Amino acid sequence: MNRPQPRDAFESPRFAQPATFMRLPHATDLTGADVAILGVPFDSGTSYRPGTRLGPREIRSQSSLIRPYSHFQQVAPFDRLTVVDAGDVDASPVNLDIAHRAIESRVGEIAAAGAVPLSVGGDHSISLPALRAVARAHGPLGLVQFDAHVDTWDGDFGSKIFHGSPFYYAATDGAIDPRRFVQVGIRGPMYGSSDFDFHRAHAVTVIDIDEVFRLGLEAVVARIREVIGTSPVYVTFDIDSVDPAFAPGTGTPEVGGLSSWQAQQLVRGLAGLSVVGGDIVEVSPPFDGPGQITSVLASNLLFELLCVVARRRQP
Amino acid sequence: MNRPQPRDAFESPRFAQPATFMRLPHATDLTGADVAILGVPFDSGTSYRPGTRLGPREIRSQSSLIRPYSHFQQVAPFDRLTVVDAGDVDASPVNLDIAHRAIESRVGEIAAAGAVPLSVGGDHSISLPALRAVARAHGPLGLVQFDAHVDTWDGDFGSKIFHGSPFYYAATDGAIDPRRFVQVGIRGPMYGSSDFDFHRAHAVTVIDIDEVFRLGLEAVVARIREVIGTSPVYVTFDIDSVDPAFAPGTGTPEVGGLSSWQAQQLVRGLAGLSVVGGDIVEVSPPFDGPGQITSVLASNLLFELLCVVARRRQP
Amino acid sequence: MNRPQPRDAFESPRFAQPATFMRLPHATDLTGADVAILGVPFDSGTSYRPGTRLGPREIRSQSSLIRPYSHFQQVAPFDRLTVVDAGDVDASPVNLDIAHRAIESRVGEIAAAGAVPLSVGGDHSISLPALRAVARAHGPLGLVQFDAHVDTWDGDFGSKIFHGSPFYYAATDGAIDPRRFVQVGIRGPMYGSSDFDFHRAHAVTVIDIDEVFRLGLEAVVARIREVIGTSPVYVTFDIDSVDPAFAPGTGTPEVGGLSSWQAQQLVRGLAGLSVVGGDIVEVSPPFDGPGQITSVLASNLLFELLCVVARRRQP
Amino acid sequence: MNRPQPRDAFESPRFAQPATFMRLPHATDLTGADVAILGVPFDSGTSYRPGTRLGPREIRSQSSLIRPYSHFQQVAPFDRLTVVDAGDVDASPVNLDIAHRAIESRVGEIAAAGAVPLSVGGDHSISLPALRAVARAHGPLGLVQFDAHVDTWDGDFGSKIFHGSPFYYAATDGAIDPRRFVQVGIRGPMYGSSDFDFHRAHAVTVIDIDEVFRLGLEAVVARIREVIGTSPVYVTFDIDSVDPAFAPGTGTPEVGGLSSWQAQQLVRGLAGLSVVGGDIVEVSPPFDGPGQITSVLASNLLFELLCVVARRRQP
Amino acid sequence: MNRPQPRDAFESPRFAQPATFMRLPHATDLTGADVAILGVPFDSGTSYRPGTRLGPREIRSQSSLIRPYSHFQQVAPFDRLTVVDAGDVDASPVNLDIAHRAIESRVGEIAAAGAVPLSVGGDHSISLPALRAVARAHGPLGLVQFDAHVDTWDGDFGSKIFHGSPFYYAATDGAIDPRRFVQVGIRGPMYGSSDFDFHRAHAVTVIDIDEVFRLGLEAVVARIREVIGTSPVYVTFDIDSVDPAFAPGTGTPEVGGLSSWQAQQLVRGLAGLSVVGGDIVEVSPPFDGPGQITSVLASNLLFELLCVVARRRQP
Amino acid sequence: MNRPQPRDAFESPRFAQPATFMRLPHATDLTGADVAILGVPFDSGTSYRPGTRLGPREIRSQSSLIRPYSHFQQVAPFDRLTVVDAGDVDASPVNLDIAHRAIESRVGEIAAAGAVPLSVGGDHSISLPALRAVARAHGPLGLVQFDAHVDTWDGDFGSKIFHGSPFYYAATDGAIDPRRFVQVGIRGPMYGSSDFDFHRAHAVTVIDIDEVFRLGLEAVVARIREVIGTSPVYVTFDIDSVDPAFAPGTGTPEVGGLSSWQAQQLVRGLAGLSVVGGDIVEVSPPFDGPGQITSVLASNLLFELLCVVARRRQP
Repeated sequence: MNRPQPRDAFESPRFAQPATFMRLPHATDLTGADVAILGVPFDSGTSYRPGTRLGPREIRSQSSLIRPYSHFQQVAPFDRLTVVDAGDVDASPVNLDIAHRAIESRVGEIAAAGAVPLSVGGDHSISLPALRAVARAHGPLGLVQFDAHVDTWDGDFGSKIFHGSPFYYAATDGAIDPRRFVQVGIRGPMYGSSDFDFHRAHAVTVIDIDEVFRLGLEAVVARIREVIGTSPVYVTFDIDSVDPAFAPGTGTPEVGGLSSWQAQQLVRGLAGLSVVGGDIVEVSPPFDGPGQITSVLASNLLFELLCVVARRRQP
Repeated sequence: MNRPQPRDAFESPRFAQPATFMRLPHATDLTGADVAILGVPFDSGTSYRPGTRLGPREIRSQSSLIRPYSHFQQVAPFDRLTVVDAGDVDASPVNLDIAHRAIESRVGEIAAAGAVPLSVGGDHSISLPALRAVARAHGPLGLVQFDAHVDTWDGDFGSKIFHGSPFYYAATDGAIDPRRFVQVGIRGPMYGSSDFDFHRAHAVTVIDIDEVFRLGLEAVVARIREVIGTSPVYVTFDIDSVDPAFAPGTGTPEVGGLSSWQAQQLVRGLAGLSVVGGDIVEVSPPFDGPGQITSVLASNLLFELLCVVARRRQP
Repeated sequence: MNRPQPRDAFESPRFAQPATFMRLPHATDLTGADVAILGVPFDSGTSYRPGTRLGPREIRSQSSLIRPYSHFQQVAPFDRLTVVDAGDVDASPVNLDIAHRAIESRVGEIAAAGAVPLSVGGDHSISLPALRAVARAHGPLGLVQFDAHVDTWDGDFGSKIFHGSPFYYAATDGAIDPRRFVQVGIRGPMYGSSDFDFHRAHAVTVIDIDEVFRLGLEAVVARIREVIGTSPVYVTFDIDSVDPAFAPGTGTPEVGGLSSWQAQQLVRGLAGLSVVGGDIVEVSPPFDGPGQITSVLASNLLFELLCVVARRRQP
Repeated sequence: MNRPQPRDAFESPRFAQPATFMRLPHATDLTGADVAILGVPFDSGTSYRPGTRLGPREIRSQSSLIRPYSHFQQVAPFDRLTVVDAGDVDASPVNLDIAHRAIESRVGEIAAAGAVPLSVGGDHSISLPALRAVARAHGPLGLVQFDAHVDTWDGDFGSKIFHGSPFYYAATDGAIDPRRFVQVGIRGPMYGSSDFDFHRAHAVTVIDIDEVFRLGLEAVVARIREVIGTSPVYVTFDIDSVDPAFAPGTGTPEVGGLSSWQAQQLVRGLAGLSVVGGDIVEVSPPFDGPGQITSVLASNLLFELLCVVARRRQP
Repeated sequence: MNRPQPRDAFESPRFAQPATFMRLPHATDLTGADVAILGVPFDSGTSYRPGTRLGPREIRSQSSLIRPYSHFQQVAPFDRLTVVDAGDVDASPVNLDIAHRAIESRVGEIAAAGAVPLSVGGDHSISLPALRAVARAHGPLGLVQFDAHVDTWDGDFGSKIFHGSPFYYAATDGAIDPRRFVQVGIRGPMYGSSDFDFHRAHAVTVIDIDEVFRLGLEAVVARIREVIGTSPVYVTFDIDSVDPAFAPGTGTPEVGGLSSWQAQQLVRGLAGLSVVGGDIVEVSPPFDGPGQITSVLASNLLFELLCVVARRRQP
Repeated sequence: MNRPQPRDAFESPRFAQPATFMRLPHATDLTGADVAILGVPFDSGTSYRPGTRLGPREIRSQSSLIRPYSHFQQVAPFDRLTVVDAGDVDASPVNLDIAHRAIESRVGEIAAAGAVPLSVGGDHSISLPALRAVARAHGPLGLVQFDAHVDTWDGDFGSKIFHGSPFYYAATDGAIDPRRFVQVGIRGPMYGSSDFDFHRAHAVTVIDIDEVFRLGLEAVVARIREVIGTSPVYVTFDIDSVDPAFAPGTGTPEVGGLSSWQAQQLVRGLAGLSVVGGDIVEVSPPFDGPGQITSVLASNLLFELLCVVARRRQP
């Protein structure tokens, strides 16, 4: 087979050439693509520390470390899938509505072309237009959300849409099916017990961080799979689900989170689900250290998710 | 006289107590204030690297170094003026229009109370609502703009207002009088010679960086004073007028700029002008180094501007 | 009830306004306060890397993320307690004796006013004057110390008091009751087995880090509660009890420590104890990364401790 | 004409899309190119702090700020020249000889295609293979070297070639004509007065930093032009010619250097020379601050050099 | 006994005096030494981010925190062993072959003097000359390798030797006995399942990271001891075996790794083995944060290994 | 002659071996030494940001760049002088009085041995014991102080001695002769015009920063020489005399200062004076960036001062 492969690191050093996701070809034409990795450099939905607009650029750079084979998932995703770097959405940094329309449009093109869109944010508000676009192709979606925060508030500062509200509107719009919606890793000081009113009203499943630590990863994975079932599902990974020790480069860090190994296990646990789209969001490089370990982690989680998609294809 | 003074650093260490501008009292009531220093933590008008929303917080912290007397301007501003930290505008980070209305309203309150508003940004878009508010109290204003960029474009990304367009709209709205508008320090690669069409059409004065270096500071100061005259003037200091060596913590750095000493001389050169408002903008702490020298510089330029205001008052 | 609440983050952005602890009002008058959070910016008792004098300022800033409700402790502390930011002690940075007297005096005022003092350091030497002041109000105290180091040496460099000796002198002074003194998380290379002579002589309980990992958190909590009993207790949390991955911003980091989740569980495990004072110390912002995760962690642990205090009050 | 232009920053945000030099198209086919900007990510010739292998990646990123028109040179280079990002040389990081052969080969292809190669290093050793390749097309070259160091030693550590020896070998090989070789900005502690033996023997011109400051920029420019004349010339810009305040991100910083404005003036002063190749080297991003001002400066100097090349073409 | 002790930190502050490993005397004469800690500042075998050449310098600095007694291993190593800082190998940074010869020669001197060489890298390529030198004194060695990567590739970029190939050549040269070779912590995306062909062919034991987490530390230690037996063994600790949260300062970080406590337990688990040499490699200070926690960790692991060596000596 | 030379950087890489000042031998025995470079890692006299206790360590490291010959002073100082790294004073970090006694004692030993002590701080308070010790050997000294601050206050926070008071006490003690005392570079906001009362009373000469910029360097040098004359003089260089752009790593930065080139010229201008001691102080590495340019600058200024001393000796 002749699928695009990451550039060979034994011939072209990892740090060489313009950075693309996983050293894949940059393709604006999506013909034949199975998966399109799409940068969404937008952070004007952010309520606290900004900077996730610089996420795609840095994640491209740090994803140079990704090699083509997963020993733990036993799959070589680039052999089974045609994966491309689809470039970025040109989203206005000064107007959320214009930006979200551009995102919805571009993700819609990818889904319409039959490819799985994996978006790299950007703040969490971008999941809303992405979900809308994917739901147009696949119907109301299941949703697995790894996150410290529920992100189901209904607005802020006089604006309905911000990075704390995407799933409220995805649910009320019908882009997702709340009964097939599970949140993992929720923690941190909250506004009140009313923060879960939405979940109670819509039968959303929450597995908070204490449950993750106490039930163990296998039980968590089993619960996720039970909620989601076999219908199409979207996976959204907010990097702040991981502890700030492992992911300091984010805007609203919450201590007491997942380790990177736990995060990997949870993503690997999604194997077999019908993943039709996904994103990884809230990586803010200016708040990371010089090692940029948050972008390294995001690159790896993206790779794990890609392997999950690949495992559904015949080799 | 019994005006508020910065806390005494020989009794309360500079690093102690909640940080306010220049260790002044935080006052929400402006009665009797001559100058109100107002934080405007807003950066959603930014087209490149964000982070100036964190400017007021860091400038408050670094302004702890300011002492109460200017040897070079021979004035003790806190003896002549009642100066307060007026807190921040609570500006929506996710909607520019709502935010700008809040800024215009709060600056308007200060001007209406008879105080000189000195705003600490935030991105340069905040100058537009500030100018509108001050012009409502004083009529069309003269404007001294220290900046690397002209900021007279008429929009971007489908939005009229962003941090590159404030002075286009301040002029077309009548908040400023373009013939009494002078820009100092302009440089950097541009879009084309058409970047100055606005200036030619409206008789705006530009003193580019080469003129600053070649004419010398005294000639530049003389030219500014000639353009501005004796009517009310607003002073806007974009920190990127200074070279990135002296001010690395900014979003669109342009090399080849002013030194910090030159910047101080230019602000001191405004003594005698009728300054009715001003701002210092575009300080982005996440792009500064651990010494946070950009916020130190901004604090000092704010102090110099305060001395300029003080020198018009009888001691 | 009309207790002070953190400013509403849906109206005033988290990064706005002069930073106070948890966005609470800054109050110098303690009338009616149940808990006073007090900054103690003093680091001249430090034997290695300095910088904790900058701790209160940075922790104020990062505590902007704290929301008013604990899902895990099921309590809204600001509804049950009147909590204020009591400002900082103005402690001399160049003379430990003068500084310690100022600290003891200010903490004493808080305790005398009937409020629980929660101090934010500063180096660990500040616990000594704080303990003395609280013991004056409550008698000899129990002490829960989370720490990598025993801090029971009897002096250094010709000085009795430094950040390695507070508990030696607190015990010999009678401010604490050594039999109700438990240390958790002790580790790192030591000077010799004699480092525990003090503990053996005074029946101090040590739960070293290997015991924490091997016994499990529930057993550790049970042991702490058994040692402390129901009499008044002071809780001192040295941030270096946590692993440098989670808390890099500290002066004498010791690898192999607690995770942030473990730290949270241990503090939550104190619920029901009669906490009459506490501190969190040794956060040194200059050694943290740009995300300042150590101050984020300290803010959260302070919040957890506040919830522990709140749970003893009727709602 | 329809030459490639930098992506329009009013439509595609500067921080969006995979980073290429000045947001130009990445082209491996050089047909029709007038100038090829080539990354040379190689630093294994470095004797002190490494990291310049990461230079091309970071300079690509920071060059997003470059706009298409020079107000000071009065030229729009992308209107007059077809400029492309030619990607990087895949140079072995672990074997200097293999790497230098690859560099010489790739630069030779560019020169053979009739384009001017502008290389972005990488350490200064890369100038040697680049000069050899360009000299093969144009004969022995004049050389303008902006640098703190002479780089004319004949070897180090048992190796002839390292970043301190390129011009010794370029001269002895005949790639450059030493009488048309001028060094500008030389300074710093040296090994001995013998450091200039090479210069005396080969009639190389040195304008040390004191001469730059004392003669003034115009005289320096005149002297450079006199030495170089009208024959083909190569321009090598070692970023350490600039003071560490303006360019901290480099491996062997020498204090007391050029300001960024002086550096710009000196490059602009080359207008009219027959520039057939050039490079900018020794940018080491890990030693820069979070604002990455060294890469911003390098991007601007590259732009100025491009304008110099463009001014020889008819509009 | 009168063995050299670390300088007394109660008399000479930890941050004082020229930094040596663990504040030990710097000795070039090895007479009487039991253990020689040797800096190997070489990183020209690095395929991705460089900087480990600065490792010995920073690790010396951060090792100032090491105290002389291990509570967990119950040993005072400097009482049982004569340990010195043997300085650094003067290894050419621009020629790997010359550098490796210098390393092999210096490590050989140490081994010949009857001392155990503990090398502080530097990149992982340095283990090859070190193993050759130690094997000359002790015969084919057992090898315990803590690492994220197998490092058994047979070359890269036209060079046989780089930091990914040392153990391929150590095995094929006979410096190590592959049946007594165990790798712990292996993870990360790989090139293919063929990455383990070498292991299968040579009966090398791999305990990947999932096995570490699932088997538990005690089982892992038992397996290591079973593979190694009682013959001489060399221990190589690549800091990237630890998770980037705990060790961000490294060149090829792989998420999902060991915690620092796990790393300590694993090294302590080697007690009783016949350790005749060892190294700790791949610490790259420029990619660490301001707290330099990676060097702190490396210092501690070195101390633990030293205690392991000490425990075989009679007190 | 056989004087100690810096290690040869063509044989031993600059980054290799334990760091000493300028790669000189570390000597505790001062017999035969002409100049002793002494680390004084003490910062407990600091009123604002701490960290200068880490100065000697970092300056040692960055001084690895110093080569043995000054082209601009035309002297090879290590050929004319026996220069050693005398190690550090073991100064108590927790008690200023004890620390100052240790400093005075150690500097006194150096002066008594006939060597010129050049101290590397540490905060500026260390100049007081150093001056006392040198004055004991040479009588009341002339003093050239490069500084942003006058440092002639008479105390702070209930303590007479801190880093703002050394020269008040040096003058009143008779260690310096105020009529031969000149301060260069004074600037920044002050407490009041009374800040110069001391100067008026004692006939101290001040050349403030505006005079430096307006008179030019030659006139400043002439004025210094006129004030100092031919009697013994001590030179104290506070790094904050230099602008924060060039020296960000300091505790009380003042914008609008010297450039590094100006600083070099001013030190070179001291040639011929009878320099019997000196120091460079207030370098605080934690506030510097990753390039540590402040320590690089301090190393160079130390080298220039050493050349000034050397030029008085016959070659």
